[in-house]
Amino acid sequence: MRNEGSYVALGLKTWNAQIDRADKLFAGFSSEDILREIAPGKNRLLYLWGHLTAVHDAMLPLLSLGERIHPDFDVAFVSNPDKSRADIPSHEQVRLAWNRVNAELRKGFEKMSDSDWLQKHSAVSEEDFAKDPSRNRFAILLSRTNHLSYHLGQAVLGRK
Amino acid sequence: MRNEGSYVALGLKTWNAQIDRADKLFAGFSSEDILREIAPGKNRLLYLWGHLTAVHDAMLPLLSLGERIHPDFDVAFVSNPDKSRADIPSHEQVRLAWNRVNAELRKGFEKMSDSDWLQKHSAVSEEDFAKDPSRNRFAILLSRTNHLSYHLGQAVLGRK
Repeated sequence: MRNEGSYVALGLKTWNAQIDRADKLFAGFSSEDILREIAPGKNRLLYLWGHLTAVHDAMLPLLSLGERIHPDFDVAFVSNPDKSRADIPSHEQVRLAWNRVNAELRKGFEKMSDSDWLQKHSAVSEEDFAKDPSRNRFAILLSRTNHLSYHLGQAVLGRK
Repeated sequence: MRNEGSYVALGLKTWNAQIDRADKLFAGFSSEDILREIAPGKNRLLYLWGHLTAVHDAMLPLLSLGERIHPDFDVAFVSNPDKSRADIPSHEQVRLAWNRVNAELRKGFEKMSDSDWLQKHSAVSEEDFAKDPSRNRFAILLSRTNHLSYHLGQAVLGRK
């Protein structure tokens, strides 16, 4: 068992805390609510949720935990802005994908040792990693946790 | 010098990246802009900035880096909601305090060794820390970085 005061345990604890917050927040929105903009003219809640799901999905190959489950989410929620396309995944599809992707990450994280987190992530070459050892998996965990917090701060504005 | 791929270096790098983002974002607001609400009926930019300053100021004693510089900010930006008091610090006062507090934190962080970060923070007793070693200074760093990201996600909505 991991020492609960270790750096990695703290990084995972912070990640899990934000995931729990997001789970609770998004679970509270009806299919009508989820189409609400967080502020006039800004992203809809569904877009934020799909965006977070796509970014978390991309962590699977980045951390060498497996293939992406929903590469199809990128066109709807990453490479195009909200309200630019009619054919985006539904509320139910995003909910299922969000749960599945985060469960897969959780399973992968459990198998990683503390030293695994200091290994290079998959988007950096051996050569570049030798020059900059900060481009490791722990850096991905911290930056994605902050990315989640950033959009959570926005999503709470969509509550009635 | 700290190994730049170490957990602590990564935690500090993530903190610094968010501080830089906040510096740039808030520096771009005029004294008129800063009184704008991030969304109708929500917090004003000045309140968010003051709130972040107060929370960072409180990190000084929490991490045993010194006394608070601006305990007076709490009544305006923490214990009371925005627009409930007329006498809050001005734009210029918040700007100066934000810069001073973060500079003081930076100076303190530079003196901390990797193992210092795993020591208990000052708001937990020796006894409680023995039971839960996750209540350490690194946990404070991670949670305050996410707190900053959360409000940054909101503050960007206040841009014109």
